[in-house]
Amino acid sequence: MHSAPPSGGGGGVKLEVCLTPALIPLYKVEDYIVVVIDIFRATTSICYGIENGAEAIIPVSQVEECSAYHEKGFDYLLAAERDGKVVEGFDFGNSPFSYTKEKVAGKTIVLTTTNGTHALHLSRSAKKIVLGAFINITSLCNWLKQQNENVLLVCSGWKNNFNLEDTLFAGAVVEQLKNSGFVIDDSAIAANDLYQLAKDDLDGYLKKTSHSERLKKLGIEADIAFCLNVDIATAIPVLDGERLVKL
Amino acid sequence: MHSAPPSGGGGGVKLEVCLTPALIPLYKVEDYIVVVIDIFRATTSICYGIENGAEAIIPVSQVEECSAYHEKGFDYLLAAERDGKVVEGFDFGNSPFSYTKEKVAGKTIVLTTTNGTHALHLSRSAKKIVLGAFINITSLCNWLKQQNENVLLVCSGWKNNFNLEDTLFAGAVVEQLKNSGFVIDDSAIAANDLYQLAKDDLDGYLKKTSHSERLKKLGIEADIAFCLNVDIATAIPVLDGERLVKL
Repeated sequence: MHSAPPSGGGGGVKLEVCLTPALIPLYKVEDYIVVVIDIFRATTSICYGIENGAEAIIPVSQVEECSAYHEKGFDYLLAAERDGKVVEGFDFGNSPFSYTKEKVAGKTIVLTTTNGTHALHLSRSAKKIVLGAFINITSLCNWLKQQNENVLLVCSGWKNNFNLEDTLFAGAVVEQLKNSGFVIDDSAIAANDLYQLAKDDLDGYLKKTSHSERLKKLGIEADIAFCLNVDIATAIPVLDGERLVKL
Repeated sequence: MHSAPPSGGGGGVKLEVCLTPALIPLYKVEDYIVVVIDIFRATTSICYGIENGAEAIIPVSQVEECSAYHEKGFDYLLAAERDGKVVEGFDFGNSPFSYTKEKVAGKTIVLTTTNGTHALHLSRSAKKIVLGAFINITSLCNWLKQQNENVLLVCSGWKNNFNLEDTLFAGAVVEQLKNSGFVIDDSAIAANDLYQLAKDDLDGYLKKTSHSERLKKLGIEADIAFCLNVDIATAIPVLDGERLVKL
């Protein structure tokens, strides 16, 4: 382990990166603030929706769970995609462009996201669960610096597998926090080094990744480009029961 | 996914990196040749021992299992350490310097290694399980290129956690194989990029790691330096039942 710099502001608390949800059980999450990361596209869309005044966003893993909210008569917007297309009868899909002020202000949205929901579920005993994306990164990091708590950055990955885009974002968070006195682990070092390599051309670097290829086949390159915008939002979504609301 | 280069020799088979043993269940290991990696120090010592004529090396996870071989009356050398010291009554510990020709030629050794044994156990249904270390890397890679099989590089890590040294070695293997037609995944890209960053000064880079710090506290810096020697061996250990023997 790195020892904490003597002048650090974090008091020697830990900053660690959990590279896939399958590794969450290795951590005593009740000792951490957990940041859930699913850059393409769930946490980006949710951060953007909360920024734009959505009252709450409820993440679920299955399209069927999402429809159930409609059947119960709730007046919620429902977001679900299959193969890159909005599922029939739903209000919209997972594109961040659907989460504009005009569409979401004052609304509650039920959003289907397999990997993100899985990560949230496994982290549920954490001290607090917040969501991060490039669009709110500096706001998130400033808040994390003030907490004096252990921080676990959880990459949602793809079906429990490691992915590069979530790891790069974790590395970008480490970049902002690493001189604030946190003790960092090997995966935080690795994520930060990968971010250093990629930061001057995130989009170019991510062209190498598996998920980027998948998303391109779905014709949603514009979404990907949007997800790499930095600091266009300041809202931080926090989990309150089953609902993500503004911190 | 990267698509396989048209001129590749691997026929589009996969080259993937499993970053910790906790992720092995995500792979259908029966479709892969598995390379188990535990650079500091188990796989380095085992490769060196097999190179130096050991008849077989039997990896076990507990010191007690190791002693059991003695109690059964087998004429095996027993290797076990606790806190960096040879356990009383054992022949030697896990230092690669114990695995010289003089000590191991013609012998069977029972070696205690928690992380390595765990990775081997979880990989046991693989097509074949071989061991890799910097000391036999080119020989290993040349053999892998000839197999035309999917390859899974399994990092033993530390108590199921990610570690940098095993990941860097995986990245060094990817470096030798990536132009041979393998389809590589995100973790292979990440491991290879980290290796690119570190390759000119592996020792310096690894000074950042958690395990390196642990080993230094044990006073075994010379072991670490030895484990970073490249291509001083050609033997490849392969698992045959419970025994690692020369391929």
